[in-house]
Amino acid sequence: MREQNAELLVLGAGVIGLSCAWRAAQQGLRVTVLDPAPASGASWVAGGMLAPVTEAWPGEEELLALGVESVGRWPAFAAELTEAAGRPAGLRTDGTVVAATGSGDRAELDAVAAHLARLGRPVERLTGRELRRLEPGLGPEVRGGLSVPDDLAVDNRLLLAALRAAGERAGVVFAATGAAGVLDDGARVVGVRGTDGTEWAAPTVLVAAGAHSAELHPALHGLVRPVKGEILRLALRPGAFPMPRRTVRALVDGRPVYLVPRADELVVGATQTEVGFDTTVTVGGIRDLLRDAERILPGIAEYALVESAAGLRPGSPDNLPLIGRLGPEGLLVATGHHRNGMLLAPVTADAVAALLRGEPVPGPVGVADPARFVPAAPRR
Amino acid sequence: MREQNAELLVLGAGVIGLSCAWRAAQQGLRVTVLDPAPASGASWVAGGMLAPVTEAWPGEEELLALGVESVGRWPAFAAELTEAAGRPAGLRTDGTVVAATGSGDRAELDAVAAHLARLGRPVERLTGRELRRLEPGLGPEVRGGLSVPDDLAVDNRLLLAALRAAGERAGVVFAATGAAGVLDDGARVVGVRGTDGTEWAAPTVLVAAGAHSAELHPALHGLVRPVKGEILRLALRPGAFPMPRRTVRALVDGRPVYLVPRADELVVGATQTEVGFDTTVTVGGIRDLLRDAERILPGIAEYALVESAAGLRPGSPDNLPLIGRLGPEGLLVATGHHRNGMLLAPVTADAVAALLRGEPVPGPVGVADPARFVPAAPRR
Repeated sequence: MREQNAELLVLGAGVIGLSCAWRAAQQGLRVTVLDPAPASGASWVAGGMLAPVTEAWPGEEELLALGVESVGRWPAFAAELTEAAGRPAGLRTDGTVVAATGSGDRAELDAVAAHLARLGRPVERLTGRELRRLEPGLGPEVRGGLSVPDDLAVDNRLLLAALRAAGERAGVVFAATGAAGVLDDGARVVGVRGTDGTEWAAPTVLVAAGAHSAELHPALHGLVRPVKGEILRLALRPGAFPMPRRTVRALVDGRPVYLVPRADELVVGATQTEVGFDTTVTVGGIRDLLRDAERILPGIAEYALVESAAGLRPGSPDNLPLIGRLGPEGLLVATGHHRNGMLLAPVTADAVAALLRGEPVPGPVGVADPARFVPAAPRR
Repeated sequence: MREQNAELLVLGAGVIGLSCAWRAAQQGLRVTVLDPAPASGASWVAGGMLAPVTEAWPGEEELLALGVESVGRWPAFAAELTEAAGRPAGLRTDGTVVAATGSGDRAELDAVAAHLARLGRPVERLTGRELRRLEPGLGPEVRGGLSVPDDLAVDNRLLLAALRAAGERAGVVFAATGAAGVLDDGARVVGVRGTDGTEWAAPTVLVAAGAHSAELHPALHGLVRPVKGEILRLALRPGAFPMPRRTVRALVDGRPVYLVPRADELVVGATQTEVGFDTTVTVGGIRDLLRDAERILPGIAEYALVESAAGLRPGSPDNLPLIGRLGPEGLLVATGHHRNGMLLAPVTADAVAALLRGEPVPGPVGVADPARFVPAAPRR
């Protein structure tokens, strides 16, 4: 066993692993992060919406509450991170509009608005004309929608760079090694075996390996699966219609699409397919994204396509993340964030930091306790 | 003046420059090719169709004759090149089918077929069913078309690598320098000034710089312009419908599209726009290519998009290339090949080799004499 003297090994340098590592190092722990390719997975491909309200879905009220808790933490999180990293965290506070085209799409948005009103979170309904006053690039097919100024966005790539910088400044060690599995003695964690055969000793291990988490300890088997998402990055060209200021989400004949502005790019996403560990960008995926995005913002026809990519979201059985203790003593997990890794990073990192101090997690995080998937001991 | 002892300076290492350099070196000339980025322009992006018949257009009979002459030279050219380079030239001899969808597209193909018959080059008309017997991937919208087995294709990237290798074996020197302009003393060529300020001496200069040719000598001003083309490269994925064997060309609601199979890729092209020296790949261009290609070969929806790129074809005022002497003594040009650089490479290289020996060019190349653009001296 190679002695690393780490008190905490974090498996995975995506947005969740990096956020948790930074927070843990802030409270004095010696932290090592293992990732063969930091910040290169789903977090790198992400759209970066911080959008609990426009992600809300009847029946997923616990996820909405968790998201609202986390988006509320985002401005302070971003400010602290910017200060700690010495570089921008990438938060954008221009808000979100949701656009609908056909009558079916408008009825769907009506149902979401009514649902949110019942939950005490009313959103503003707007006509097509009112929406175009906010975002003049919206096309003539947009007949109505919502304004949700509190649904924010983050430039995921700025964020990842800032998290890594802040972690390094706080003493986090990064090792470009893959993890093959968590090692335990049957009762408690003793370390991690790397894909190169080396072993890393530590009393506590945090699995934050996104869609790959289920491979790393038997307690996670079956709890996380890859959900592929394809995404495009467009760049404004001279003479083309300006980018939207806000995040634009839309329903186009029932298909969701979003367009998230950056300083210099417009991110268009995202397909959602379950085809295992496949990150191929398909013709059909790009065709769908371009078709639907152009119907919402026709001016993008003159934009440049600068990148197409696919990432693997970590899906869980109930669409809620897994944040907490699971399996042997010393094993922590923070994964299964599905479409919401960027959004939930602040509250997840605060929850993991609390667990490392032996304190309870913030209230709304309770629903993410992985214990919900552990079968109760049979009654005798 | 830097003394290079070159007898021939070739400006441009695309398919035309490389072919001419190889042929010139074969007949004993000391040849230097100048290009800051060899094989990276329109030739790198090209679809690689060797298709004079399916490119035929009423009113362009001279171009058809030139193309037929060159495609006839292709098999021997490819065999000789493969031998000389010690690597494959990339020729594919599976032929071409042309597919039409709507009645307007079928009428257009009827007109092309009648035109070719009048020229004594009959092509085989096929029903949709007969076409699908040849290429089972053709979609249900394909209602009829043509079979043109003598229209071939070449893997442009294999070809470029083979041409460079054959050139090097024949003694061609490659200099990674851009050319700023041809130098002459008013009566004859003395060399070339590089973009880095160095000067190269030579008694003969061949301008083969594609869309950039017009910048290199005043005699070429206004004779070559960039015609942008966007193209996609798709890759077959496990479980997807197999690639076509033949080149598939099609008219979809009047828009031409082609799909050219390689060993491991399917090339889909090409848009055609005149927007100056711009090689941005646009959302609108990709949307058009994918939409039209999928209507012809629906199975490509499951293919991977592995590359999107744009190249600048060298357009001429009359769609015929410029091959021959122009301006001061010692200046040769081989440019303006527009969509037909790959096709016309063998006959162009043979013509330039003949000119370097002081012999006449092959008959059909006469129409490409740049002298057609030189105003006759005013009568006194």
